[in-house]
Order: sequence, then structure tokens, then C-alpha cells
Amino acid sequence: MSPAPLFKRVALIGFGLIGGSIARAARAQNLAEEIVATARSAKTRARVAELGIVDRVVESNIDAVKDADLVILCIPVGACGPVAQEVVAYLKPGAIVSDVGSVKGAVVRDMAPHLPASVHFVPAHPVAGTEHSGPDSGFAELFINRWCILTPPEGTDPNAVERLRAFWAGLGAKVEIMTPDHHDLVLAITSHLPHLIAYTIVGTADELGQVTSSEVMKFSAGGFRDFTRIAASDPTMWRDVFLANKDAVLEMLGTFNEDLSKLTRAIRRGDGEALFEHFTRTRAIRRGIVEIGQDSSAPDFGRPHANLANEPE
Amino acid sequence: MSPAPLFKRVALIGFGLIGGSIARAARAQNLAEEIVATARSAKTRARVAELGIVDRVVESNIDAVKDADLVILCIPVGACGPVAQEVVAYLKPGAIVSDVGSVKGAVVRDMAPHLPASVHFVPAHPVAGTEHSGPDSGFAELFINRWCILTPPEGTDPNAVERLRAFWAGLGAKVEIMTPDHHDLVLAITSHLPHLIAYTIVGTADELGQVTSSEVMKFSAGGFRDFTRIAASDPTMWRDVFLANKDAVLEMLGTFNEDLSKLTRAIRRGDGEALFEHFTRTRAIRRGIVEIGQDSSAPDFGRPHANLANEPE
Repeated sequence: MSPAPLFKRVALIGFGLIGGSIARAARAQNLAEEIVATARSAKTRARVAELGIVDRVVESNIDAVKDADLVILCIPVGACGPVAQEVVAYLKPGAIVSDVGSVKGAVVRDMAPHLPASVHFVPAHPVAGTEHSGPDSGFAELFINRWCILTPPEGTDPNAVERLRAFWAGLGAKVEIMTPDHHDLVLAITSHLPHLIAYTIVGTADELGQVTSSEVMKFSAGGFRDFTRIAASDPTMWRDVFLANKDAVLEMLGTFNEDLSKLTRAIRRGDGEALFEHFTRTRAIRRGIVEIGQDSSAPDFGRPHANLANEPE
Repeated sequence: MSPAPLFKRVALIGFGLIGGSIARAARAQNLAEEIVATARSAKTRARVAELGIVDRVVESNIDAVKDADLVILCIPVGACGPVAQEVVAYLKPGAIVSDVGSVKGAVVRDMAPHLPASVHFVPAHPVAGTEHSGPDSGFAELFINRWCILTPPEGTDPNAVERLRAFWAGLGAKVEIMTPDHHDLVLAITSHLPHLIAYTIVGTADELGQVTSSEVMKFSAGGFRDFTRIAASDPTMWRDVFLANKDAVLEMLGTFNEDLSKLTRAIRRGDGEALFEHFTRTRAIRRGIVEIGQDSSAPDFGRPHANLANEPE
């Protein structure tokens, strides 16, 4: 009953959370006849082979792209340009070249100049992830109901865009198309600024003199622990994101700082009404996110809670 | 087999998330012979009666405290002083009077002057919660493995402290004792500042011109949605927290702003090493919190993920 796979050969360069999740989901959904994977470190390649979730693990990026119909770079944003340059001579004519980077303007700027007219460049960003990284962290359900944003440069063959859209839809994602610049603004507020703030506050807590780290951890259930999840994300990936999306992040940061000053002033002046008004408004946004299925409505994200010794009958 | 309940009559004034969770857990654990509850609004009182999880719902705070051995104010911090003043003449000699407020210095300052020497004042703060509020939001497991901080004024009868400790231990909590001032510093960083930051960024996202609210919601899985959870917390409670713990919050905010400036400067200058070093350090704190059982190690907090249509066999 299964239709023919969308692609004959899919090459995954890089096998962290995203590469590993694509491999697992693509196999589960029969989206490729063959999945070839590679990774920079020999340890990761050995682990991928051991996991048995791709058809072939190869030693180099060049070996990976040979004869591939779809090549996806699943590596930090800063590595995309050099890898494109490395493999460009070995790409199959007609192949689709894509990535999964959280920044799109810089990726287009770094990759596009290397790519020949004989291939289709369709940058992509699946807006999904967890705080874990490495070849074991992926899972087939990661993209379900999440958005994947495609940012094809003007003039890209619509058939290539459509095939990549079908691939991501097959992985469970909802697909949207926008320009790289607009993508970078949207993600600056929905992802990059939240990460920067979380990294900051977790660092602040770690440095305090009057409150110990062990106290911070013990009493983290009051709110702090939610921030530590995203501040535990992959450091290399996030370093590259902030360097690559500098302008949009600095712009959002400016607005954030103004708003923080406003609330700080309200606290200093004891202006309860201003605080109450602000706190009431933010509740509505949460409701919207839950309503459109982008988060769980279960209290505490549905975190597991232990049972009491004597449960009521 | 069950031992005798710790208290004959427990009075809960206020029936939101915390009051409702105490009622459910105390009943499940047989910690009180009788639980009496009241709430300010007739609608909440009717709902509590309908839920059938307390022995008696009464119309007034005064009726609630009569003959109670343990009185717990489960109301916003700003309401604690006036309620203490209202009920003081009706408290049973020897009763323990407590609260659940997220700020302790202000509660002690507001309540202690009203209370007669014939009762024991043992302020408490269970460091647990969800983003939901109201009489239906509580659940018996809320306090399990969470900390409850007691801040008895100097000279409090150790037996009273011990009885309240046993009550909270019975609800599943681990109990710690500290001074009100130290509590307020610890909570400023582990809870109040994270909430202020989350309220700020969710507000910022709501005000942007170039990115629409619907885009913010759609692409929130990149990190933003974690902030919306705590920015959906009860506005009245949080207004009172910031007014009552102003000094400690402003102090932590000062440190946070310095740290944010440092990271902002690293981004502006393209200093990848400084970013990488910071992002690596913050991972360790997350690990510590998971190790001591204050959060789930499951990716994404263990949020539910849907299944793919064709699961691998």
C-alpha cells in the first residue's frame, strides 16, 4: 500500500538531534529508498552505524553527497558555508540541497555562492528541538505538528520546493514559506532571544554570592528550572546562531530591554496596577499557543508527578 | 493501620491552586480529622462544596478559623495582613497560624503584629506550582519531592514548628528552615526574577510590529513557549510578590542586567569564544537540577509527542 519513496537517496551530513530525528522519521515513513549519513567525528559515525537506523554510514561529506537526490546539512550554521564549498563538485545534477539551520540569511549568504545552477537550493528550518544533542538524542516524532520554514531564494524551481515540502510533511511537519530576512526576525523573538535570556539568567544564578548554587537547584521548581532546559541546549549550535543572526537579535534585545525597564520602574514605584495589567495580557498568548497545538495544556507541561504513599481510593 | 491525624481541624483560607492541593493531599494522607475551607468569592465556595474535597465550606474567614488547630492562609501575599487582622480575635489558643506566600519578609511584617502570644506563627512557602489557578487546578501530588520552606520568627515554640514540618512532610514535601530575609533572596533568583523576565519577553513578543502575534505562536516551539508557561501564572499573586519582595528583586535584576550586557557585547563584537564558554557552563546547572530530582530528564520536560501515521514495526 505504501507509495514509492519521495527520494532515491537522501544524504544527511551531521547526525545530532535533528539529523538523527530526520533519519528515524524518514525511515519510519518510507520517504527514501536509501539514507546515507556521515558525521565529522569517528565516534559519532561508529555510533550511527551501531544504531542501525540508516542504510549506510560513510567517512566523508564527499562520499555522502555522491548520487544523492536530497542532501541535508544537519550541522551548526557556521559550518554550512565550508561544507557547501567542500562538496560542490560532487553534487548530482538536479539534486536538492538543503539545511536545517536556525538562521537563514547567513546560510543563504554562505552557501548560495558555491552552489552550481544544476542543483536546487532550498534552505529549511524545522522549528523543533529538545535540550539534548548527539546521535542518540533524535526520535521519529520530533517534527510532528511542528513548523518547518522553507526560504527558497527567488527563482528556485517550484518543483524542487514542492518535493522538499512533501518530504517535511512526510516527517510530520507543517510547512511554511517565507524570505530569509523575515524568518530571521521571527526566530529572533520566538527562539534566539528566549535562549539568550535563559543563558543569561542561569549564568547569573551561578555567580551569586549570597545564594549558593545548591540552593538555586533545590528551590528551582519556583520557575527557574524552566529556563535551565533551554540553557542546556547545544553550545556550538547556539554560538553560531547568535553570531549569524546578530542584527535581528540585537534589535529584539533593544525592545526587550525597554520593556524590562518599564516593569522594573513599576516595581520600584510600587505601581501594582501596571504590573497587574501586564501580567493579565501575557496569559492570553499562552492560551493561543496551547489552542493551536504548539504546546501541552497539561499543568507544568505535563511533567511527571510522583504518587503519594496512600492514594485516595 | 493509619496513625491518628496530625491535626483535629485544619482551616484553609483561600482555595486556589495551593489551597486546593493542600486539601486534596491532606485528605489523601489523612492529616486532619476535619478540613474547613473558605474563599472570598461565593462562586469559588460553591465550587469547592461541589467538588466535595473538604468537610465543610464556610462563608467567612472568621467562621473558618474558629476551633481550628491549624490555620493556613492560601491567599495572595498582599491579603495576608488584613486577613490576620480580621480573624485574630477568633483564633483558638495554641493554634498554629501559617501561610503559603512566595515572599516571607513582608508576610512576617504584615501578620506578626496582629497575632497574640497565645498562637504559634510559622510562615511557610511550598516551592511548587503550575501555571493554572482556581479551585479546580489543585492536585494531591503537587508537593511531592518539592521543598517547603518554613521561616519561624525567633522564639517560636519548636513543637509548633515540628508539627507544621510533619504536616508538610505528610503532603510529600521536603522541609527546610531559614530566615525570612534569606528566603526572599533565594526566591528572588529562583522564582521571582524568572517570572519577571518571562512576563517581559512575552509582552515584548506581543508588541512587535514586524512579527505578528500569530507568527509568534506558530513558531513558539523554538524556545518561546517555555516562557509563556510561567507568564501565564496568576496575575494577582505575582503583582503582590513583586511589590512585597521589591528590594531583593531589584538587586537580582541589577546583576542580571550586567550579565545580559556582557553577552550582548559578545554578540555585537562577534566574540564566539565568550559565548561558547558561557553556554557550556550553564549546561552543568541543568544537570544538577535533574540529578537532585527537581526536574524531569525527559527531553522537552517529557511533553507528549504525537505518533507518526506509520510507526516502524
